[in-house]
Amino acid sequence: MSASSTYAAAADPAFAHGAAWVDGEVVPAREARIPILDTGFVRSDLTYDVVSVWRGAFFRLDDHLARFERNWRRLRLRPPLAPGRQRELLFELVRRSGLEDAYVAMIVTRGVPAPGERDPRRFDNRFYAYAVPYVWIQRPDQQAEGTHLVVARDTVRIPPASVDPTVKNFHWGDLVRGLFEAYDRGGALGVLTDGAGNVTEGPGFNVFALVDGVLRTPAEGVFDGMTRRTLIELVREERIAPLEVGELPVAELGRAQEILLSSTAGGIMPVTTLDGAPVGDGRPGALTRRLHARYWEAHGEARFATPVS
Amino acid sequence: MSASSTYAAAADPAFAHGAAWVDGEVVPAREARIPILDTGFVRSDLTYDVVSVWRGAFFRLDDHLARFERNWRRLRLRPPLAPGRQRELLFELVRRSGLEDAYVAMIVTRGVPAPGERDPRRFDNRFYAYAVPYVWIQRPDQQAEGTHLVVARDTVRIPPASVDPTVKNFHWGDLVRGLFEAYDRGGALGVLTDGAGNVTEGPGFNVFALVDGVLRTPAEGVFDGMTRRTLIELVREERIAPLEVGELPVAELGRAQEILLSSTAGGIMPVTTLDGAPVGDGRPGALTRRLHARYWEAHGEARFATPVS
Repeated sequence: MSASSTYAAAADPAFAHGAAWVDGEVVPAREARIPILDTGFVRSDLTYDVVSVWRGAFFRLDDHLARFERNWRRLRLRPPLAPGRQRELLFELVRRSGLEDAYVAMIVTRGVPAPGERDPRRFDNRFYAYAVPYVWIQRPDQQAEGTHLVVARDTVRIPPASVDPTVKNFHWGDLVRGLFEAYDRGGALGVLTDGAGNVTEGPGFNVFALVDGVLRTPAEGVFDGMTRRTLIELVREERIAPLEVGELPVAELGRAQEILLSSTAGGIMPVTTLDGAPVGDGRPGALTRRLHARYWEAHGEARFATPVS
Repeated sequence: MSASSTYAAAADPAFAHGAAWVDGEVVPAREARIPILDTGFVRSDLTYDVVSVWRGAFFRLDDHLARFERNWRRLRLRPPLAPGRQRELLFELVRRSGLEDAYVAMIVTRGVPAPGERDPRRFDNRFYAYAVPYVWIQRPDQQAEGTHLVVARDTVRIPPASVDPTVKNFHWGDLVRGLFEAYDRGGALGVLTDGAGNVTEGPGFNVFALVDGVLRTPAEGVFDGMTRRTLIELVREERIAPLEVGELPVAELGRAQEILLSSTAGGIMPVTTLDGAPVGDGRPGALTRRLHARYWEAHGEARFATPVS
């Protein structure tokens, strides 16, 4: 029995699909609603973050909260709840849901303008949060086979000069367009370039490639994903492989021996075909399997894990 | 008494701030809510359109509906209501609100994924709509003075290669960033460039400039706004001025004799300062005043106006 069984056993079945915080109330996630006039919706004027809960413990909770705070400050948002209270609420949502493996989102939006008001500096900002069952970009039972990645040709990533990719946002129009292109070309996931021949990121994931014995991941034009950050730290600390955080040209990705995707929604996912051709021998590689194991093992370490109860 | 007084007089006061359609029900707009898990919110995966009602008549309703349909088809959305039913609903919302001057939005979102589902091709798409009191980017009583425009230096418009600007979307992160830059620099509104020295558009408006006797407006990287389209048509049909729809370099904007903004939310707005310096003699110019009058006059013409009742 895991340490978390107390809250899981006590959970309310009404919250089995998750729990959300909206306007001061905890409600079942699938019933939670936000105002249609919130500029978080009608302008996508917001930032968010997502932290996972695994076997009853948050993974790098305070790193997520620090990143979230940096980001809402960057957008000059003023959440109606102080950071400490936001943190408490995340615990409350997970406890109420009873979920031992969860995907926990927190959002600050610009809010609903008063009638006739147009100046976003005068809106009352809003805080929302929800905990839902853990999300897998690729299901674990499919990860042994690996996923099929396509490099989009029709769409480039929104550039940092337009929308800062390090401030987590819901501007996914380019990423969704790349996903549809991937489907059309027989893939399962799409990754976008920067329009100058370099790999950036895909919908909800970062990319790593093992090229000539060096593990490479893009430095610019991407979100500082927490799984990416964890991999970079573990690889460096434990000298698992030479690591280069810099440009990753598509041509280099194309000759990689291994490719893996990192995401809070799924962890480490091996890529076994790129644009329809096998990556390496077409099976998840040794380094990818090692990093997968190491990443999940890290979830039990006290420096990363904060038990829900 | 206007032709619309029948529905206005019969309106329900509960809907004085507007009426919305959500999940098969008409509700007061400020109480209308959408699911927090709708990917229209958490991925901004949607398209929308906005049509105005002026003195009890829709302005270019079928042009708006045609553009909207083109756009949801482009995103491979399948609204749960047929176009004819969507059209009826817009009438119903305006009648219920009793608003004679209204801003009427229609939205199709990708919808809420079933638990565990990740493939957006399998989501049930959603249709929302609302009618609220007419929105002014600049209030009419301020339009005699004109507005203060700033050309953003820190932010460029999301490029068409990332998100198609002709498919109306809520990816406003760049536009809001430009607006904050405008505030910081003493302006009231910001316009973005394409990063190559050309003017694109601002939050909810297109830009026109009178330069050496030629009225110019950008052709690329902008939304095909209905007020913009109406101006282009009227100027051409009635030979009001030489017109050029093409590139509009920032340098040309800087030496314009007149600058005006066009928007469904406010019509024609004169710009009297650019980056803090007067445009022309610092008052709304003769062509701008003429286009303003002509634009509002067109609202009474049968080819453009569809009475609500």
